[in-house]
Amino acid sequence: MPPTEYEQLMARTREAADLAGAESLLSWDEETHMPPKGLAMRARQLATLSGLIHAKRTDKAVGRLLTALRRKTLQARLSPLEQAVARETRYDYDRAAKLPESLVRELAETTALAVEAWRQARAESRLRHFAPHLKKIVDLQRRKAEAYGYEDSPYDALLEDYERGMTAARLRPIFATLRERLSRMVRQIAEAPDGSARDLLERHYDFQKQWDFGLRVLADMGFDLDAGRQDRSAHPFTSGTHPLDVRLTTRINENDFAAGLFSTMHEGGHGLYEQGFHPDHWDTVLAAAPSLGAHESQSRLWENLVGRSRAFWRHYFPAARETFPDALGGATAEDFYRAVNVVRPSLIRVEADETTYSLHIILRFEIEAGLIEGSIEVDDLPALWNARMVELLGLEPPDDARGVLQDIHWAHGLIGYFPTYALGNLYAAQIFRRLSEELSDVETLLELGQLLPIRDWLNLNIHQVGRTKTTERMVADVCGEGLSAEPFLQALARKFGDIYEVELD
Amino acid sequence: MPPTEYEQLMARTREAADLAGAESLLSWDEETHMPPKGLAMRARQLATLSGLIHAKRTDKAVGRLLTALRRKTLQARLSPLEQAVARETRYDYDRAAKLPESLVRELAETTALAVEAWRQARAESRLRHFAPHLKKIVDLQRRKAEAYGYEDSPYDALLEDYERGMTAARLRPIFATLRERLSRMVRQIAEAPDGSARDLLERHYDFQKQWDFGLRVLADMGFDLDAGRQDRSAHPFTSGTHPLDVRLTTRINENDFAAGLFSTMHEGGHGLYEQGFHPDHWDTVLAAAPSLGAHESQSRLWENLVGRSRAFWRHYFPAARETFPDALGGATAEDFYRAVNVVRPSLIRVEADETTYSLHIILRFEIEAGLIEGSIEVDDLPALWNARMVELLGLEPPDDARGVLQDIHWAHGLIGYFPTYALGNLYAAQIFRRLSEELSDVETLLELGQLLPIRDWLNLNIHQVGRTKTTERMVADVCGEGLSAEPFLQALARKFGDIYEVELD
Repeated sequence: MPPTEYEQLMARTREAADLAGAESLLSWDEETHMPPKGLAMRARQLATLSGLIHAKRTDKAVGRLLTALRRKTLQARLSPLEQAVARETRYDYDRAAKLPESLVRELAETTALAVEAWRQARAESRLRHFAPHLKKIVDLQRRKAEAYGYEDSPYDALLEDYERGMTAARLRPIFATLRERLSRMVRQIAEAPDGSARDLLERHYDFQKQWDFGLRVLADMGFDLDAGRQDRSAHPFTSGTHPLDVRLTTRINENDFAAGLFSTMHEGGHGLYEQGFHPDHWDTVLAAAPSLGAHESQSRLWENLVGRSRAFWRHYFPAARETFPDALGGATAEDFYRAVNVVRPSLIRVEADETTYSLHIILRFEIEAGLIEGSIEVDDLPALWNARMVELLGLEPPDDARGVLQDIHWAHGLIGYFPTYALGNLYAAQIFRRLSEELSDVETLLELGQLLPIRDWLNLNIHQVGRTKTTERMVADVCGEGLSAEPFLQALARKFGDIYEVELD
Repeated sequence: MPPTEYEQLMARTREAADLAGAESLLSWDEETHMPPKGLAMRARQLATLSGLIHAKRTDKAVGRLLTALRRKTLQARLSPLEQAVARETRYDYDRAAKLPESLVRELAETTALAVEAWRQARAESRLRHFAPHLKKIVDLQRRKAEAYGYEDSPYDALLEDYERGMTAARLRPIFATLRERLSRMVRQIAEAPDGSARDLLERHYDFQKQWDFGLRVLADMGFDLDAGRQDRSAHPFTSGTHPLDVRLTTRINENDFAAGLFSTMHEGGHGLYEQGFHPDHWDTVLAAAPSLGAHESQSRLWENLVGRSRAFWRHYFPAARETFPDALGGATAEDFYRAVNVVRPSLIRVEADETTYSLHIILRFEIEAGLIEGSIEVDDLPALWNARMVELLGLEPPDDARGVLQDIHWAHGLIGYFPTYALGNLYAAQIFRRLSEELSDVETLLELGQLLPIRDWLNLNIHQVGRTKTTERMVADVCGEGLSAEPFLQALARKFGDIYEVELD
């Protein structure tokens, strides 16, 4: 019997997935093992793979198969799973097919140069060198938005790549609430008597012992080290070639225990998602998170809601003290809990604490939406950035390196990406609230170091869903309501009100 | 101006090279870093890549471009380098195009199963379980030989894949000489008073110190660790994605210093070849060794002719003793030199010494040529193998695991591959003799630890030649004569006659 249309589609999808797995491994290797002189060659290898994958995904034959599968008679023969696969494959195909290849190539070439210019500009701490590149990127991204099409704001078309279904119009009121409530909270905490300090974390922590401690926590979280591994890289990330081969990276700083451990738990959260897709979805487009916000909800949940909780450290602190007796010998679990929860406005997003972090995101969202919508000009960025930092966090960047130039995202052409970090925080709080209602007593589980019931609940309710639902649909089905900032804000007020002994709202 | 035919050919070659680089990295990762559960998926990713590469290399459009480039008017416009590229590309294309895709696929499927069967058979130490697979492989390899075509023996068609231009008829007299002279030498040494022992090497050698010692020697050899790296694997190998990204692997045994160090030097020899191709050849088919024998000549030269020389250890032994005072405190450089040069017939090829090694190869050549030519049957292998081992080395394997089942090569369908190991020994001796004549005093260089002049000479005379010449042409141009066993046999007689204080010939 000749293969059905669906089987033909699957054969093509699998081939593209195999190439995407190869691409992913080459990128991982570039950040973890590749000798320095391999850089230029690796860039070309990656460009070749990425071109081939794009060509396979937008192959007209795929379009014909998808059209055929829409016919009533054929559709009736598909299982619900197969229908979901066909629907999501069509979504990807339609999106990819909307972008002219010339634009895709121009974007790739522009961002390759822009990243270099960004590095130089950041080293010199002057936007000037990077500004013409950023202008070109903004222009290309606007053309991309036009090619995709949109109803309200061109920014929506870009956001769709990272957070499907989300729009600037929906983000604005949510971010307005966050901005107001978080700013007030940060101010209230700043006025509270200073009860905690970070210096406990900045003593000497042996590299290998930190590494082993991190692996132990990963194993406790249920990350399968026979189906994944952890390596070092300058900037932690999660990638992999398949749910049975998931690669985490972390960084270790011998004078900052928190940096390494929370990176490990953060990436571990991403890694559990990647390992946790439903086996029936493997090799189909369904084995993926429905959005970056959904993915980030898992990393934030493990990093912040589990890893920075008092109950978690009641269990792990004795082991940490035994591992690092010189650094932690005189400290208590409560000292440690407070040290990993210091709230202090800072200039750098990636160093921000749980409370101030989302304010950094709001700043970036306002600016990038303005750039795409045409209400903000690149040349005005340094002044605008610095003024908004003063308003949001009460700090003025002394230079552009610690201001508008600190993130690589825009140089890579990633506009519409930043909001997903904040959405991850909100979804994490919603999901964790629901999880806490459903599991009998999460605090006791954490105090016992029993992390597997949490992983299992997340696996069933989040990971295995894959792309069968949109993020908001999944969250609404699990939590009983769509995107909401309240659980996040209430959890922060409760936690930091307790730590800083102040009434927060 | 539209791209010329040559430029079009190059664009296609580069794309295939990029995919081959990806394939190579995925294989390297499988042996070095991949978590165990990734195995099945990785096999599929590799199959997809390998299919794509084959399709690109045999694309009819490549054939048309090559035909166009043969036209006098076009050929006249090509530089000598471009003509060589076109010639070698045509050679590869013609070879690949001769194999029906169905046969390629059947071979891949058969060997995948055969490798599993071989593992099981070896564990049980019974050929029986593997025999039907080997019969099928022999049959498919014969069909492959028919598809390629040959003049004299079907074995020649297979040999061509690994050692271009070589034939069974040329190997037989050379191997007959080797067999006779080496067997006599081994007998003479066995009868000599036993002056040396290996146990010095079997004391405790710390893992990390061995690793660092190996890296130091690699750096001294001129292996560029900014354009390559070394990792651990069960079976040492060299791969990489490009001359600027060459991956070596080695194994470390804490109770056998020689195992790790000589693996490192052996793979380092391969690695220098891979890093040493002429930059004008990069990204073309010319950036490759002309045969496996040529490649092996470089690994053997560094492992045996440099690494197992007295002069080399006069320089490195003091450092080794300082690094491993417990193991080597009471020993001298001369003790050490003798320990790494013990001649002793053994059952296992990969553990064989410099003198007995080629006898293991001759055995395999005789058997595999007989299988392909039809004079030997698979079912007779165990008895035949054991009888020939007695004749050649005076040892009878107690079981098939230590006999006919010890190597994985046949299970992988590699028939015609083994002779290249012996040819590597012969070419290495020819090249090293010539190098010693041209460099003023190699022994003094070695005693000073000055390895770079050796690397530079090899680079100029061997590595940079790439595929512009066949192996024998290159060796003849450099050494003044084509393949010859004399330099190898004479060097062995001189070295081991001295060590064992016996007249060898």
